[in-house]
Amino acid sequence: MERHEALEIVQKQLTDHRYQHTLGVMETAIALAKQYGADEKKAELAAIFHDYAKFRPKEEMKRIILEQNMPNDLLLHNTELWHAPVGAYLVQTEVGINDEAILNAIRYHTSGRSDMTLLEKIIYIADYIEPGRIFPGVEEVRELAKHDLDEALIQALKNTIQFLLKKNQPIYPTTIETYNALMMKKKGESASE
Amino acid sequence: MERHEALEIVQKQLTDHRYQHTLGVMETAIALAKQYGADEKKAELAAIFHDYAKFRPKEEMKRIILEQNMPNDLLLHNTELWHAPVGAYLVQTEVGINDEAILNAIRYHTSGRSDMTLLEKIIYIADYIEPGRIFPGVEEVRELAKHDLDEALIQALKNTIQFLLKKNQPIYPTTIETYNALMMKKKGESASE
Repeated sequence: MERHEALEIVQKQLTDHRYQHTLGVMETAIALAKQYGADEKKAELAAIFHDYAKFRPKEEMKRIILEQNMPNDLLLHNTELWHAPVGAYLVQTEVGINDEAILNAIRYHTSGRSDMTLLEKIIYIADYIEPGRIFPGVEEVRELAKHDLDEALIQALKNTIQFLLKKNQPIYPTTIETYNALMMKKKGESASE
Repeated sequence: MERHEALEIVQKQLTDHRYQHTLGVMETAIALAKQYGADEKKAELAAIFHDYAKFRPKEEMKRIILEQNMPNDLLLHNTELWHAPVGAYLVQTEVGINDEAILNAIRYHTSGRSDMTLLEKIIYIADYIEPGRIFPGVEEVRELAKHDLDEALIQALKNTIQFLLKKNQPIYPTTIETYNALMMKKKGESASE
């Protein structure tokens, strides 16, 4: 699918603000794919469609989560988490993208998962650091992403967990699994040095 | 079992420093049991024996975790977590205490769990705030424990998670489950007010 076609499709699903964010994620994801040797075309498409389901009604997302046997614990946690797996499903069924690597990058762009692929890390980080993002801690992650994607990811996850603690919000267990897997990989690496 | 017998048994298992800590946990746990209406005798015994396995060799603890089919993920996480479930097992098999409420308070005193009993909360908090504890954040938990055990527990869990993030340590999933369960209960309560 050509970029302009993809953008045309997604623009209809988003507010103007969210569409501008999507363009930022797209540029950032392509740059990271170039730098770290991922498939640029897949990065482009995953970025364009990562927020495809963002503005679907909660009831529709809930129905899809139940009907498609997505992890049940999603329903116990913040609805902010829902648009990622629901988005992967709708991008496949409505847009017709069947590439699992792209769909997984959309599916895990909010929670992460243990053993993330390079493409999944790129979309997660691009979503976090695209130029429109200005929240506390983003600059540190931007700097880390220039040299080490895993370190950037760890810092982004730490920021997210700290933010949730501060806001008295539950923490989605998969977010902790993602953080733990990265920390354990890092320990394993430093132990074998 | 009389207090002096229990103390005599546990003293042989501990360093002097850890025995002093145990006396602090005992006094604190009894005071909390009085205040919140838990069984004072069970609080006393659970407190006395909570660190029973603290100085067992790691190899012995690992063997018991495997042989007794304790949660496997314990072995992936900090060895600091091992002495609690191993302690519950040894207090039953070596000391002969069979009261499940006491054993569970020992078992979950480091990780917590969702749906903690009052006694389990008391031992967790007493371990955290006994007078010998002087780390950052302890005073806030001490204050909260005077009025609301759940709030004290939430704050202790938050401190623990923040500490682990700062130290680049993995976070034991059960600790997050405990925090999440308390936050969701709190939300449920405030939503129905």
